[in-house]
Amino acid sequence: MKLLEDRILREGVVVDDQILKVDGFLNHQMDVTLFVEMGKEWARLFGPENVTKIITIESSGIGIACVAAEQFNCPVIFAKKAASKSIAGEVYTADVHSSANGDLHHLMVSKQFLRPEDKVLLIDDFLANGAALGGMVELVRQSGATLVGAGIAVEKAFLSGGQRIRDKGVRVESLAKIKSLAGGKIEFC
Amino acid sequence: MKLLEDRILREGVVVDDQILKVDGFLNHQMDVTLFVEMGKEWARLFGPENVTKIITIESSGIGIACVAAEQFNCPVIFAKKAASKSIAGEVYTADVHSSANGDLHHLMVSKQFLRPEDKVLLIDDFLANGAALGGMVELVRQSGATLVGAGIAVEKAFLSGGQRIRDKGVRVESLAKIKSLAGGKIEFC
Repeated sequence: MKLLEDRILREGVVVDDQILKVDGFLNHQMDVTLFVEMGKEWARLFGPENVTKIITIESSGIGIACVAAEQFNCPVIFAKKAASKSIAGEVYTADVHSSANGDLHHLMVSKQFLRPEDKVLLIDDFLANGAALGGMVELVRQSGATLVGAGIAVEKAFLSGGQRIRDKGVRVESLAKIKSLAGGKIEFC
Repeated sequence: MKLLEDRILREGVVVDDQILKVDGFLNHQMDVTLFVEMGKEWARLFGPENVTKIITIESSGIGIACVAAEQFNCPVIFAKKAASKSIAGEVYTADVHSSANGDLHHLMVSKQFLRPEDKVLLIDDFLANGAALGGMVELVRQSGATLVGAGIAVEKAFLSGGQRIRDKGVRVESLAKIKSLAGGKIEFC
């Protein structure tokens, strides 16, 4: 998606070969006008699938997912991260090792809100090693709902996450796919 | 706001005299259509103030804030919670004791994104003891920006938070103000 790629080129900060900072418009300060256009693009790609639920993970996927959901006219569920397994009520759970800080998160979605008849689109800001997205795929599998696919803002295509998730048969649509950050230069696929 | 009050009466679950669960439409599963209407109401109330930034706190305020921001045509910043003070870059910080679980959170907003010339609206899902909102007020004060006010979805008016924040001279507009949850009955102000 050219709009997102141009914005990354203009305002993204390459920290090192692995890390791209986009906290001016994507995941600390959030440009909601950009999110609307991203939502329209995912609606173009996934619109015919009749999505009934969008799932994301706290925290930085939530804004993008909610604005995108306006295009799909469906609710968003955000999977909660918890350090402990002591939680109330019936939930689907998946353990996720964060690539950002190495922490183990215990993802949870209430069974009440995710049903076998649902058609689910996953949305997140980044796809790197695929740990978070893999956890969301696992939650959907547990529920028996249909997984329509995943809408990702920025995929680090030089890491294995995207391929690993696609190899599971999941349709992944990333709006900006980064081939390399080597030498401080952002190169798209 | 009648739409929100009606929804709370229909789907809210009174856990005890202090706790109201609204996770079917506000803070786990999120009804984005409802958020649009909430955004319109805050735009009606705060529109003349020329808001340039909306600030919220991760996680459950983010979706509401982003959808509301479409009405204000401005970006959203979400204050990050961190357990440690070891953070990179220049940030405004405020310590907040969570009333939900007693944890101490260290709120952070990058100085880069909050400027003295900004006119800031705070948005959050709940106002109870006012700890989170008080922390956001403190962040804005540090930046020298103008605080336009706070838009809250659900205020527990039987607790002291709202009064305490208003006593600081902050305009607080809560769309549903709960007078009491006694005896399992939801009563609005």
